[in-house]
Amino acid sequence: MKTITVGLVGVGKIARDQHIPSLARTPGIELVAACSRNAAVEGVQNFATLTEMLAALPDLDAVALCTPPHVRHALAAEALAAGKHVLLEKPPGATLSEIEPLIAAADAKGLTLFATWHSRFAPGVAPARDFLRDAAITGVSVEWKEDVRHWHPGQEWIWEPGGLGVFDPGINALSIVTAILPRPIFLTGATLEFPSNRATPIAADLAFTDGDGLSVTAVFDWRQTGPQTWDIHVDTDKGRLTLSSGGARLAIAGAAVGIGPEAEYDGIYARFAELVTAGQSDVDVAPLRHVADAFMLGRRQTVETFD
Amino acid sequence: MKTITVGLVGVGKIARDQHIPSLARTPGIELVAACSRNAAVEGVQNFATLTEMLAALPDLDAVALCTPPHVRHALAAEALAAGKHVLLEKPPGATLSEIEPLIAAADAKGLTLFATWHSRFAPGVAPARDFLRDAAITGVSVEWKEDVRHWHPGQEWIWEPGGLGVFDPGINALSIVTAILPRPIFLTGATLEFPSNRATPIAADLAFTDGDGLSVTAVFDWRQTGPQTWDIHVDTDKGRLTLSSGGARLAIAGAAVGIGPEAEYDGIYARFAELVTAGQSDVDVAPLRHVADAFMLGRRQTVETFD
Repeated sequence: MKTITVGLVGVGKIARDQHIPSLARTPGIELVAACSRNAAVEGVQNFATLTEMLAALPDLDAVALCTPPHVRHALAAEALAAGKHVLLEKPPGATLSEIEPLIAAADAKGLTLFATWHSRFAPGVAPARDFLRDAAITGVSVEWKEDVRHWHPGQEWIWEPGGLGVFDPGINALSIVTAILPRPIFLTGATLEFPSNRATPIAADLAFTDGDGLSVTAVFDWRQTGPQTWDIHVDTDKGRLTLSSGGARLAIAGAAVGIGPEAEYDGIYARFAELVTAGQSDVDVAPLRHVADAFMLGRRQTVETFD
Repeated sequence: MKTITVGLVGVGKIARDQHIPSLARTPGIELVAACSRNAAVEGVQNFATLTEMLAALPDLDAVALCTPPHVRHALAAEALAAGKHVLLEKPPGATLSEIEPLIAAADAKGLTLFATWHSRFAPGVAPARDFLRDAAITGVSVEWKEDVRHWHPGQEWIWEPGGLGVFDPGINALSIVTAILPRPIFLTGATLEFPSNRATPIAADLAFTDGDGLSVTAVFDWRQTGPQTWDIHVDTDKGRLTLSSGGARLAIAGAAVGIGPEAEYDGIYARFAELVTAGQSDVDVAPLRHVADAFMLGRRQTVETFD
């Protein structure tokens, strides 16, 4: 099988922490180029813009987009127009509507478009989904609380419109919930807390149902110092299932379940190689749709400034 | 062909002004029942709840839901579960995500689900769409300005989360724009003006593109007294097309185009009868998706109180 060559766009924290190491480890796929206005990746060809990269490397197979979401559509459209497979960091766009023409463009050209949700590749997610398929679910509660100062130092775009605020981590929880529950859910009410000097929320309180009486609640908070909480609890007729540490640990009815090591981005690139080889796309907008629903239906509260 | 019997749910302003007269005029479809907690329709069977109506009328073919959007999902799900075709007033729900399980339920039972957008049945819309199919479009601007006190007297739900505020009329403009433009558009930026004492916006300023440089702007404002404005201008290589009065009038290159009389809801019910007869559904969430995108991506501004 031919190795899939990848050019990475946007050499920021997530690219360095995750994409570049995972690309180096994943068989069948190879990082050959990067583009960034102000950073370079060692050992590959570097370009200032995607346009230059596409012009210089006509045989490049795929492009991985790790930029902030508000510029993702234009880059994805440009890469698809040049005949490249495209991998999108989460969220797949700043809007839901911009994703539709990308799906159409990929389909029209027989290219792979992969909207990734890295948390879905956490080791506890697949075993949790398998367990829940055969369980009677009686309630779900999500607690996703972290310290924004630690995880997003100096990232001003997360506070700008389209940056999603606390939904930037919260969408990871929603990507897991929508992957492990056997039936779709939808929002029935929400409260969003906006710091008085910021355009995106710092906390959110969400209530969902599946239309059949199931209660799914989620609390997202970016003000948590000390221990960080990324937990999903699912009560069932077979006991409580708890995914913790963002899906890296799994317990059922009080007993830890043995699962693999954390390897979210390795999973993403293995899946991308599979999709490209099979000529398929994988674009599930459900997590972003829930976020848009929360902005549309949620009640806004103004809270103290965040600096 | 058997007449399609319809039970109407939610006997408010829109039901009395539009649905009931159009049902009386449309061949092949007949209003036989209504339910409302506090109103009745003359000449048909009346019930307090949908549950009672469904129990009393097992042979009823279809249900038309004219309630505010936040209760629409539960009613639609109940009607589909009872084997009834369902017509939804706009918007089809309070969230995007709640519509997915309704589509699945209708598909599973071979029932018609029709998410209506009444403005798409304005007489200028189809001729505008046909003209634009063969034109080179260079710009689109939408102006949708009306007096909320006149059009929504005492309707408190429009100011509550999920009520959409000025997007309640604005979504009509978006339903036309998405019907007449040959290519999909998506939002690139928005400003939403919220009265300091209200949970939904009273005005919005939106910028869209089609990903190919086209500029589509829209201004929605609920504070317009005097003449009301519901205009869509599309500049093309063949001159400017203007849909005005919400689609009831059409002009191209300065000349009025002869179109039919206003008959939006007659068009809706004729289409519903067609869909039921053909065993098809018609659910286009694009207008609501643009609204959700605007709430997610839009910058919020606080403006003076509205009482």
